[in-house]
Amino acid sequence: MPTFDAAPTALIVHAHPEPRSFNSAQMAVAAQALRDAGYQVDVVDLYASDWAPVLAAAEFAPLGGQVFKPQAEQMRAVRDGTLDEAVKEQVDKVLAADLLVLSFPLWWFSLPAVLKGWVDRVFVMGALFGGEHGFFDAAALAGKHAVLLFTTGGSHEMFQPGGAFGPQDEFLFHIHRGMLEFVGYQVLDPVVSYGPAHLDDEARAVALEEVRKAVTVTAENARPSR
Amino acid sequence: MPTFDAAPTALIVHAHPEPRSFNSAQMAVAAQALRDAGYQVDVVDLYASDWAPVLAAAEFAPLGGQVFKPQAEQMRAVRDGTLDEAVKEQVDKVLAADLLVLSFPLWWFSLPAVLKGWVDRVFVMGALFGGEHGFFDAAALAGKHAVLLFTTGGSHEMFQPGGAFGPQDEFLFHIHRGMLEFVGYQVLDPVVSYGPAHLDDEARAVALEEVRKAVTVTAENARPSR
Repeated sequence: MPTFDAAPTALIVHAHPEPRSFNSAQMAVAAQALRDAGYQVDVVDLYASDWAPVLAAAEFAPLGGQVFKPQAEQMRAVRDGTLDEAVKEQVDKVLAADLLVLSFPLWWFSLPAVLKGWVDRVFVMGALFGGEHGFFDAAALAGKHAVLLFTTGGSHEMFQPGGAFGPQDEFLFHIHRGMLEFVGYQVLDPVVSYGPAHLDDEARAVALEEVRKAVTVTAENARPSR
Repeated sequence: MPTFDAAPTALIVHAHPEPRSFNSAQMAVAAQALRDAGYQVDVVDLYASDWAPVLAAAEFAPLGGQVFKPQAEQMRAVRDGTLDEAVKEQVDKVLAADLLVLSFPLWWFSLPAVLKGWVDRVFVMGALFGGEHGFFDAAALAGKHAVLLFTTGGSHEMFQPGGAFGPQDEFLFHIHRGMLEFVGYQVLDPVVSYGPAHLDDEARAVALEEVRKAVTVTAENARPSR
């Protein structure tokens, strides 16, 4: 148990292939804003660490010829203490964090594959939900917060109802409801920079300052009450 | 140009780690139903072919120290004829198919990472949309059809409005609208088997027969008018 005055903790899982991108700068600004708000911040950089995103039988104990059923193998691995080491490390980070931040460019109105594969492998049945846990409010992360921090190619207007793409909330539903709320998180308003690819230096600085302000609000809203 | 009486063509992109799963059996039944309806069927098995899902700078021509912007590099690769060979092969298959079938288990209310990474890498800006093409109805696959063929862990009831999960259509919106319609496809009703993991042999045979019937309808609705 954390002591009454332990610093809150944030885990940022970042997925952009270019360290010099606006997206990566946005992540760094968010990390600093969280530190400035008193958080201990842990950053997992999926591209830099070459995260393997494909859930497959090879990460589990030998099946002895049995048909591979991913969730059954996850339950077995939790029970037997045989979770893949790389997965176990991420599960422990997730369980230790008061706030989970998924940081990414919105690719095809969803997570980049490397981040989707972090969810596929790390949101382990039996550890975060299912088994002794339930789903949604009864899952392991209940009482904690999560937030999406992303960049888009399209403009803010394109993501409005009646816009060229459609309402942003409808695109995010599968992540907010299907991934984050499913394992118990309370989901905070996403922090988004629209179309940063073509900003000049001045506009980029303004956009990053907006991110800093928004994440400062996130930090307050995610602060655990203990 | 196809001749007036050329057989219609279907591309099935399949993403399940277990060839003996219900999901893989469902894909095989769908492929046969399409053949029986007169289609030429091409199957890409992403797990069997060890598809690399992570879009990264390494697949493009050397950047010479420039910041990596994925879509700009895709446009450049199309223009210069330097698309990665594995990607080019898939793009050509997509462009040649009258019907695209994405076959997968619904993981976290979305595509498994390996299939998301097929979309990330193969739905190339400049080839399927953007550049000389537009988006949605003006994109390269306009006039063609796509359909999702998937299995779920949860029951049909859980995917209803007011059900434990929420409306299936809302979860699928990011795929239907954000991926398939975005590149021009007309999206047909998904073909879904709910919770097949625990079916006995008899119920499994019934479920596969339902798939065969549904895909036969899909085949008629996707038939090109030429």
